[in-house]
Amino acid sequence: MRCKQIAEEPKTFALIMETGDEVIDVLKQFAASQNLAGSSFKAIGELSYVKLGWFNWESKQYEVSVEITEQVELLSLIGDIALKAGEPQVHAHVSVGRRDGRAFGGHLLKGIVRPTCELILTENPEHLQKSFDPESGLALIKF
Amino acid sequence: MRCKQIAEEPKTFALIMETGDEVIDVLKQFAASQNLAGSSFKAIGELSYVKLGWFNWESKQYEVSVEITEQVELLSLIGDIALKAGEPQVHAHVSVGRRDGRAFGGHLLKGIVRPTCELILTENPEHLQKSFDPESGLALIKF
Amino acid sequence: MRCKQIAEEPKTFALIMETGDEVIDVLKQFAASQNLAGSSFKAIGELSYVKLGWFNWESKQYEVSVEITEQVELLSLIGDIALKAGEPQVHAHVSVGRRDGRAFGGHLLKGIVRPTCELILTENPEHLQKSFDPESGLALIKF
Repeated sequence: MRCKQIAEEPKTFALIMETGDEVIDVLKQFAASQNLAGSSFKAIGELSYVKLGWFNWESKQYEVSVEITEQVELLSLIGDIALKAGEPQVHAHVSVGRRDGRAFGGHLLKGIVRPTCELILTENPEHLQKSFDPESGLALIKF
Repeated sequence: MRCKQIAEEPKTFALIMETGDEVIDVLKQFAASQNLAGSSFKAIGELSYVKLGWFNWESKQYEVSVEITEQVELLSLIGDIALKAGEPQVHAHVSVGRRDGRAFGGHLLKGIVRPTCELILTENPEHLQKSFDPESGLALIKF
Repeated sequence: MRCKQIAEEPKTFALIMETGDEVIDVLKQFAASQNLAGSSFKAIGELSYVKLGWFNWESKQYEVSVEITEQVELLSLIGDIALKAGEPQVHAHVSVGRRDGRAFGGHLLKGIVRPTCELILTENPEHLQKSFDPESGLALIKF
């Protein structure tokens, strides 16, 4: 992954991922290295592999909804970064398009880039904080 | 829904919706309370219910394309807020991912959040104005 | 297409496309006229026609994944503009929703608007440069 700050106000980065990069890993490492605490991002690109999740409200667990082991267009990667117990946490959802044009999507569990993922991220001055939500069993952004 | 202004320039808000919130209602109420007149937003989250529309060009009416009464991942919620006869009007499109990963989407007619919807909205200094478009029968942004 | 600059900092435009506009043409012409060199955009709207591409990693060519000749909701149009040999190059991916709510998507090859496409574009102070990537055969953003 290569990164360039493309604006000061608001603080904006272009993250360009390359073949073999795993999207969530890249975002986690970037968030930690930059101490991100209130970010929002969007991206497009192409993936050679993607594993998507669906939140089962009964079990309160993420299930794997679909795992795709062939090339797909990354139609949208949208998400945010907030602090959970002082550490940046990435939340990302994706839509992907298959060879026949059908779209699939879910909570991004894993995605391998091929050949590029072009992501624009804005870090805001004010932080977003997550805390445990007993009803869902998830850490959610709270004010 | 909880809201926090996270940047002054450009004026940016995080809207965090909670279980039971209806997305269009929340956006309409927020737009009215903040006098929004030229906003753009994006969001991800999860919904327990969604009703989507498709614009029928022959009849010039929105039809319900699909109504989903089970938990879905909100892959993308993208839209804008413009003034129509002096009142803010919300236009929002969504993609959602089902339990098997298949994606559906359309013009958002109704969506119930469960457990969260994390939305980032930017209000621009210049306003967007809608006016009646005779050909489509819709109010569209015009300059 | 009508255009209005809606913010100075960051430099932000609303592009409102009308019935008959071809999305890639509009973006190319706008990018050239404004000398865009590091832009990011998102849009929603409706299309009367769309042709989508899927990148075949074996042949290193875009194939047409699906061509849709009926009205669709434009769920998301996300992309960027970077310089390739000094000229702005548009990269855009879309998701669309059909009459039954099923979503399709891919690399946008061609899309005809009907009746509107509401696009928000931000031009960043720092440029994005593309260069030829031998492995993929594509021009990719490099730093």
